[in-house]
Amino acid sequence: MTDNKVNENKYIAQNINEANKIAVERLMSVQPVLTDIDTALNVLPGMTPHTILHSGPPITWGRMCDPMKRAVKGALILEGLAKDDKSAEKLMKSKKIILSPNHYHGTVGPMTGIISASMPLIVTKDMTYGNTSYSTFNEGGGKVLWFGAVEEETIDKLRFIRDEFAPVMKKVIKKTGGVPIWSVLAQGIQMGDECHNRHAASTNIFLKSIVEPLFSLNISKEKAFKVYKFIAGNSHFFLNITMTACKLAMVAASDIENSTIVTAMSRNGTDFGIRVSGLGDKWFIAPSPLLLDALYNPGYGLDDGAPDIGDSSIIETMGLGGFAIAAAPSMASFADGGFQDSVNITKQMGLITTTKNSKFGIPSLDFEGTPTGIDIRKVVETEILPSINSAVVHKSTGVGQIGAGIVHAPYECFTSAVMAFGEHYDLAA
Amino acid sequence: MTDNKVNENKYIAQNINEANKIAVERLMSVQPVLTDIDTALNVLPGMTPHTILHSGPPITWGRMCDPMKRAVKGALILEGLAKDDKSAEKLMKSKKIILSPNHYHGTVGPMTGIISASMPLIVTKDMTYGNTSYSTFNEGGGKVLWFGAVEEETIDKLRFIRDEFAPVMKKVIKKTGGVPIWSVLAQGIQMGDECHNRHAASTNIFLKSIVEPLFSLNISKEKAFKVYKFIAGNSHFFLNITMTACKLAMVAASDIENSTIVTAMSRNGTDFGIRVSGLGDKWFIAPSPLLLDALYNPGYGLDDGAPDIGDSSIIETMGLGGFAIAAAPSMASFADGGFQDSVNITKQMGLITTTKNSKFGIPSLDFEGTPTGIDIRKVVETEILPSINSAVVHKSTGVGQIGAGIVHAPYECFTSAVMAFGEHYDLAA
Repeated sequence: MTDNKVNENKYIAQNINEANKIAVERLMSVQPVLTDIDTALNVLPGMTPHTILHSGPPITWGRMCDPMKRAVKGALILEGLAKDDKSAEKLMKSKKIILSPNHYHGTVGPMTGIISASMPLIVTKDMTYGNTSYSTFNEGGGKVLWFGAVEEETIDKLRFIRDEFAPVMKKVIKKTGGVPIWSVLAQGIQMGDECHNRHAASTNIFLKSIVEPLFSLNISKEKAFKVYKFIAGNSHFFLNITMTACKLAMVAASDIENSTIVTAMSRNGTDFGIRVSGLGDKWFIAPSPLLLDALYNPGYGLDDGAPDIGDSSIIETMGLGGFAIAAAPSMASFADGGFQDSVNITKQMGLITTTKNSKFGIPSLDFEGTPTGIDIRKVVETEILPSINSAVVHKSTGVGQIGAGIVHAPYECFTSAVMAFGEHYDLAA
Repeated sequence: MTDNKVNENKYIAQNINEANKIAVERLMSVQPVLTDIDTALNVLPGMTPHTILHSGPPITWGRMCDPMKRAVKGALILEGLAKDDKSAEKLMKSKKIILSPNHYHGTVGPMTGIISASMPLIVTKDMTYGNTSYSTFNEGGGKVLWFGAVEEETIDKLRFIRDEFAPVMKKVIKKTGGVPIWSVLAQGIQMGDECHNRHAASTNIFLKSIVEPLFSLNISKEKAFKVYKFIAGNSHFFLNITMTACKLAMVAASDIENSTIVTAMSRNGTDFGIRVSGLGDKWFIAPSPLLLDALYNPGYGLDDGAPDIGDSSIIETMGLGGFAIAAAPSMASFADGGFQDSVNITKQMGLITTTKNSKFGIPSLDFEGTPTGIDIRKVVETEILPSINSAVVHKSTGVGQIGAGIVHAPYECFTSAVMAFGEHYDLAA
């Protein structure tokens, strides 16, 4: 290499490092507050009665995995656009329904992540930069849309959430004056939540904060108890709220000229896509991987699972979940690991990230912050892949969740992104 | 040593080991359930309107430390037996008031541990062996009797607890059908509680379990909120409940012929006493130590603290608190320690105990159970002293808590106990 070339490379690296510093500073300075509940059609930019939003990068009906298709059809039934699976299937083939990724509308959804017009959404505002993000309420376990398990009870539960639960929660959230999400998660990290697959403590903390607003409403006790029990019975309730906060953090870190920080990792069950701050809205895509390191329910195995799915990896993009797994070693046990494995994973994530987020101090690492700000260059150089805590959904039968474990973002997404970055900024290889 | 002597020693050791095995099996098989709330005078064996119970081994008025004296006088005012500090002092000197240790009445109390006749008590039943134990409600922080900080607001709060809080909680606990305490603590250990100085998660779990019973009572919302807020505002609320459960475990392990298992460690702010299973109710006493490893509030230091005080070390006797500190590394930071120090302490406690209690799996130790069943022989042999998470109260000014940290049970208690054991069982040295 000539001296000029060395100097040029140094200059470029310096530019990138400075841009990344800005990106992670913005990421860490967001103040996400759960402020409202509203209907998708009311609040989502670009939403129509005939639009269905889904997790992951853009995808056509034909390429969608089975559980996502099932969830889309369930949403059409909920909306009254189809009366059953058959008519929903027909409607989808008619191409009258617009499919669009959550990420294009400021929304994020776990697993299938399906959002339709009448669904009530969590509305989260970033008090620093003024952005807004959205997600559905978490439905809990069993026959649920987010796992593509659509039966009559699935639709009944969605109706309950829409018609009974959400109107009460809207009043509750208004009464709280807003729930600061980082504050809940900062406590959660001290209490064994990695804030993706484990939200037991965070959900309890959230519950505690809404008891007074809920029971002071002028509604019947029965109604209040129904709302309370729905949350208390679902230790994953806070997951979707966490996702909205992480989305806001990544929005704040987006579109920084020269930055190589990853601003989204997302999967639709077919493709795995990432976005990079300095490269705008472009997706860098690879086939979504299977969950090789997972604990499957009895009777199920690797062959039964759909490829990884959901927008929930926005949590890892923000430095929680798999990146904070040392805070919740039980999550490593899904991948046959112990405490030391959980520490190793968090430490490894430190090698592909830019900083530590001191808001989230991991007790077993002497309260060191979570590794934050994935740098595509570091992933490509080290070949260490972002580790994501995830769940497995059945690939064809519609039974819903069949396991949980750890999955890694595909290397190919990062090499494509690095190449595109080089081209975009006209950097010599 | 002659061959006969060697064989005799082996035989003795075998007897002791078998007895200890029985003791720890009994300890671990108790099923403590919070079943009721009732008044001390109603339920405590041997309680009279003129009796004041205190923490630690027996002690006379003259030998009591200042904060305990203050708390005794506060209780006399609460009971209407004295109108102010001066008349309370006079009453105590008249010897008309009977002082008795909590441990003689099936009760335990943190810090000063003062219990008087009209105080409402937590009633916990062991569903395995049928024993019952008791404690007061935790008053929280500030000017509170358990820290010997007695002002008008202290008495007002005790009146609120007695006259408003307890009657509601009695109904609530009845409605729950009983709160299984180990179940709360087993979850708490997974959420960063060591279950002595940190009860934040356990208190949240408890709160969650009483919301429905509380708000379904036929009382005004204001009354229900007042009760709810009292618990929600005190992350130590569950401490006293934990203590009743640990007391039941140690009662079950008591009075096992030949057993060298410690069944109580307790301090009255002057003396530190332990009891041993095979030696009945006898206390083995040494001066209570100061908290050398503590974080003091600004303006306070070692010289300001009273010697260690409270029955709460029943928690360590049962294998939680300091013995489980690896579950709550932030507790080690009070003693200037980090995560590894917390692990080291728990590991060390493994060297002086008999078994691991698998109910309480510590995440950072790959869910290994907490070290349980202190053996006086092992303490004497290894010179490793039981590590207790504790708080410091001011020795003279009545300001209440001035710090928190780690204290060690005095070696002398264990050497005395070993010698007494030898004499009692007629063992040659």
